Amino acid sequence: MKIKLVLTDIDGVWTDGGMFYDGTGNEWKKFNTADSAGVLFLRDLKIPLAIITGEDTAIVKRRAEKSNIDYLFMGVNDKLAVTQELCHQLGLSLSEEVAYIGDDLNDVSLLKAVKISAAPNNAPEYIKKIAMWTLQKNGGEGVFREFVERLLEFYGMKEQVLRKYLG
Amino acid sequence: MKIKLVLTDIDGVWTDGGMFYDGTGNEWKKFNTADSAGVLFLRDLKIPLAIITGEDTAIVKRRAEKSNIDYLFMGVNDKLAVTQELCHQLGLSLSEEVAYIGDDLNDVSLLKAVKISAAPNNAPEYIKKIAMWTLQKNGGEGVFREFVERLLEFYGMKEQVLRKYLG
Amino acid sequence: MKIKLVLTDIDGVWTDGGMFYDGTGNEWKKFNTADSAGVLFLRDLKIPLAIITGEDTAIVKRRAEKSNIDYLFMGVNDKLAVTQELCHQLGLSLSEEVAYIGDDLNDVSLLKAVKISAAPNNAPEYIKKIAMWTLQKNGGEGVFREFVERLLEFYGMKEQVLRKYLG
Amino acid sequence: MKIKLVLTDIDGVWTDGGMFYDGTGNEWKKFNTADSAGVLFLRDLKIPLAIITGEDTAIVKRRAEKSNIDYLFMGVNDKLAVTQELCHQLGLSLSEEVAYIGDDLNDVSLLKAVKISAAPNNAPEYIKKIAMWTLQKNGGEGVFREFVERLLEFYGMKEQVLRKYLG
Repeated sequence: MKIKLVLTDIDGVWTDGGMFYDGTGNEWKKFNTADSAGVLFLRDLKIPLAIITGEDTAIVKRRAEKSNIDYLFMGVNDKLAVTQELCHQLGLSLSEEVAYIGDDLNDVSLLKAVKISAAPNNAPEYIKKIAMWTLQKNGGEGVFREFVERLLEFYGMKEQVLRKYLG
Repeated sequence: MKIKLVLTDIDGVWTDGGMFYDGTGNEWKKFNTADSAGVLFLRDLKIPLAIITGEDTAIVKRRAEKSNIDYLFMGVNDKLAVTQELCHQLGLSLSEEVAYIGDDLNDVSLLKAVKISAAPNNAPEYIKKIAMWTLQKNGGEGVFREFVERLLEFYGMKEQVLRKYLG
Repeated sequence: MKIKLVLTDIDGVWTDGGMFYDGTGNEWKKFNTADSAGVLFLRDLKIPLAIITGEDTAIVKRRAEKSNIDYLFMGVNDKLAVTQELCHQLGLSLSEEVAYIGDDLNDVSLLKAVKISAAPNNAPEYIKKIAMWTLQKNGGEGVFREFVERLLEFYGMKEQVLRKYLG
Repeated sequence: MKIKLVLTDIDGVWTDGGMFYDGTGNEWKKFNTADSAGVLFLRDLKIPLAIITGEDTAIVKRRAEKSNIDYLFMGVNDKLAVTQELCHQLGLSLSEEVAYIGDDLNDVSLLKAVKISAAPNNAPEYIKKIAMWTLQKNGGEGVFREFVERLLEFYGMKEQVLRKYLG
């Protein structure tokens, strides 16, 4: 498959955008175990996965560690610049070999720059117009997994990847 | 744009009305990061934003601080009186230059008094009849952002404001 | 209005049935602020409200205290017996002057015994067949408030009660 | 009824797949009290129930204890092997006397091996094709209870089991 690196936003993609606050200064996010299979499929294909998010929380760090995500960029203001730097290090072409899923304003520059871009179904209309694919699921419903499966389908590899699991 | 001050309720607007309780006395609310763009758009236009809520919790205080909200009024019994006082201080006309979004009984007087009023789609019917606009989203789904975008649209400024972000 | 006492279940009525567990032994429930108006309307009419639930948690105790609920029965195995005893104390007729909303197996005897019974829309079919009313909302969506408003409507008092709030 | 043992997955079945993380290392799952009746019905029939899950958390342990689940297997990599061993101990035929509900890749081998298999409505299409039944509810909406009730129906025992509760 032509894609050699997959990047993903977190809030609004791995979550429904929800940020739980309490009275003590602690904070929560709700992830969906369905997305774990997306991580698994990429690992099977030896395609590295990077999380890139504007937020900077111990929550996402824990999730990334649990899922053994290859790269984690938090507190990022300029997602395009960080991704360009990563592509440079990995010797990859941003416009030909990278796929990205994001859902909001700070994702626009990266959505425009990559080979394949996608947005969840409940992203704003003006973001979905920019993304190449509008997915069927909303953020937090397993839309990251849907994105990975659609990539596999697009490159004709879904059956092969699933065979390992479905027999 | 004629609106010089935007006010917003919290429970049922920034949240779905959910109040999470545990066994220790702590409490949670679930916000939606999608609403952050609403705050951003108002800031771009230098229109101040006030939160006005009947509840008085450290949760909302934290959220307001994180989002750099201009004014925060908590534990308010009479939302109309507090807003009249704020308008007086800012030299604004409540009936000509203020917009408000709220969803329930204690929002009625303010919904009636402002220039532009709105309610989430899942507000009670008798509240939606009083509000000028019924929005498409429910509370907690990003309805505050929808309200700000609809204000921008109404005053013909949406394209200009979004251009900064969408290129 | 003929109803002199309203009783309500909690899990599946004031909540969507969700019970949040963590790794430390703590537990959460998610209430909906929309239901507060139901409590308010009953207070305006001086109709006492009782919570009656099979669970016994500090969570419900806190919620009941915050909302100034008149009677709170927790850890109840036989809801009918507890309600009969309460009616006896208050000098009320269970079959003529009491209304109850519940959603599951341990509510059946009480749903059958009261004057007016109701179940949320997402209750099991065999519970909804027993209840006099199937409401439109699901548990946790404000169905307790819907129940109280429907009682007001049924007895022709809704307009009068709402007038105080809507002007 | 021919089924002598029921097994159930947790994440995506008893929950909607949601995993709540905070900043301190704690974790949450949201169960649904509606599923408790499923446990109850099996107990009435003296059919043992086993939880079998790939995760290993104190959360599920607490839930299993509260519900008095007969068998609890956590951190399981090979669900089929563990179930074969349990059947051996209990003297049961996996292919003739066991029912299982699961929703994802690590459930495939067990879904294929049991007498009756089921998946929630929001499971991936390729899992639902493998399961004998696709249920109407999504994970976390009480789909485990739906599974048990459908088993009762399938074996013509639903009315008898419910009579105890519905009178």
